[in-house]
Amino acid sequence: MSLLIYSSNARRYAHWRAEFAACAPDLTVVYGLEQADDEVEYALVWQPPHGFLKTLPRLKAIFSMGAGVDHLSADPELPAVPLIRQRDAGMGTQMAEYALYAALHYQRDFDRMRIHQLTAHWDNAVSQVRPRLKVGILGMGTLGSVVAQSLWDNGFPVSGWSRTAKDMPNIRCFAGQSQLGLFLAQTELLVCLLPDTADTRGIIDSELLAQLPAGAVVVNVARGALVVDDDLLAALDSNHIRGAMLDVFHTEPLPAAHRYWRHPKVVLSPHVAAETVYAQSAQQVSAEIARMDQGLAPTESVDLSRGY
Amino acid sequence: MSLLIYSSNARRYAHWRAEFAACAPDLTVVYGLEQADDEVEYALVWQPPHGFLKTLPRLKAIFSMGAGVDHLSADPELPAVPLIRQRDAGMGTQMAEYALYAALHYQRDFDRMRIHQLTAHWDNAVSQVRPRLKVGILGMGTLGSVVAQSLWDNGFPVSGWSRTAKDMPNIRCFAGQSQLGLFLAQTELLVCLLPDTADTRGIIDSELLAQLPAGAVVVNVARGALVVDDDLLAALDSNHIRGAMLDVFHTEPLPAAHRYWRHPKVVLSPHVAAETVYAQSAQQVSAEIARMDQGLAPTESVDLSRGY
Repeated sequence: MSLLIYSSNARRYAHWRAEFAACAPDLTVVYGLEQADDEVEYALVWQPPHGFLKTLPRLKAIFSMGAGVDHLSADPELPAVPLIRQRDAGMGTQMAEYALYAALHYQRDFDRMRIHQLTAHWDNAVSQVRPRLKVGILGMGTLGSVVAQSLWDNGFPVSGWSRTAKDMPNIRCFAGQSQLGLFLAQTELLVCLLPDTADTRGIIDSELLAQLPAGAVVVNVARGALVVDDDLLAALDSNHIRGAMLDVFHTEPLPAAHRYWRHPKVVLSPHVAAETVYAQSAQQVSAEIARMDQGLAPTESVDLSRGY
Repeated sequence: MSLLIYSSNARRYAHWRAEFAACAPDLTVVYGLEQADDEVEYALVWQPPHGFLKTLPRLKAIFSMGAGVDHLSADPELPAVPLIRQRDAGMGTQMAEYALYAALHYQRDFDRMRIHQLTAHWDNAVSQVRPRLKVGILGMGTLGSVVAQSLWDNGFPVSGWSRTAKDMPNIRCFAGQSQLGLFLAQTELLVCLLPDTADTRGIIDSELLAQLPAGAVVVNVARGALVVDDDLLAALDSNHIRGAMLDVFHTEPLPAAHRYWRHPKVVLSPHVAAETVYAQSAQQVSAEIARMDQGLAPTESVDLSRGY
């Protein structure tokens, strides 16, 4: 019985080794495709090659290293075993921090000041005492809820939209396709935290952007596939959208020729908004393995029909 | 009996007019040097011409529109009447917001990502989960204390330095020249909030910067005169200082030829970190005037021998 760990970024193995040694010293852990054998019952993976997981004959469950499972659901030969994602693994706090930075960036006009600095333009009318930007969280799952709470705690009015209705103190909650327009019409800073599913792919298109008020900002910390890049670029160029802070892209690394890199209204980060915290993740994974070894079902698994 | 309001930025008069009409409708308020007459007993001013205030024969008190009084103490003919500064006037919250933005900017490597974006360089090793930057507040007056509290509330370890000893829960307080070195040695992000006085002018020089650990950041939201610009630029160029976020300058507007404008490690804002909130200020000023009209001393006045 063993746990196989595979990541497209092999530099991470040392961290996982240290954490599993600390929290599950009796668990046999093997690393990389080459070490996979017939004893593997559990796999903790990031972007495994399609078709690989089905070669493990005793596989009982698959753990995603990240909050999203799109890197797994894209595998046409994914084995039909429980698929378990990181619940939070320290990512909620990091996402909240990134979103707060984004909110302050636009609230305090650091986007305009950055452009002014390029031409030594002193304009101290840019930052006035004025109402806080209205933040809208698109996707109120585990991470979205943490981000919403943190922005509220920092004085921003926050609303949230999700597929199914949520209820959260202080947060104005919208749900379903019928309320998406209402949600967008009152959102000045849109923080996208939806999973990448068949329903959400390309959701941030010209039609959605047109429903945001003029001068709104788009922050994407979820998945690049949610955005129709040409539509967002057109909305930035027409000044309907004031700016975009983007952490995720259709292709990563983002190709050097992509217009986002040099667009003056884009702040770009290389998929670093939130990283799985190894210690917290290893604890969650080893606890789920202990449950399953006792014949219990995992506490939470992904419903692939909805995609999260 | 009247209050004279003068600002080097006359666009602000409309705001003051509205606020004093609301909170002190019986007070006679006049605006600008031309309207000054012998009836003026109080003056609320920003950067009045030197020698002007001494021409007001019945002047009983001078209010500074800002937290600093350096624009008044520089007047060699300043009348010997009480000098009253803005206590907070909404500036504490704004300063805290600016300092939090600065802390997140460096905590989450937005400075490095900004430079990487210029060359389409994808480097997702830049942001790691790691301990929060240790913040040191240089100047623990009214505003410094608010900033310290806010950064602590947002998870940053905070220390403070002041001329005389302070005591604040959760904040490690250093005091006096003898503890300045200890304070600097453990500060990774220095937030300068000192008043501009004979003792503090040029305090941020090569000697002080050398006492910060390598890779430290300097944030100046107080007064430009505190910094020896050539020393800060040399420390940035030698990589001893990682970056600087600067809101205030020796000369404002900052001359277009100044190296700060184009330095890749400088984030520049045009003296907007905190603005006096008119409503709160007008309330403070009219309450002090009411006290003095009853023959009472103002609740707080500046000690010009120490400069704040």
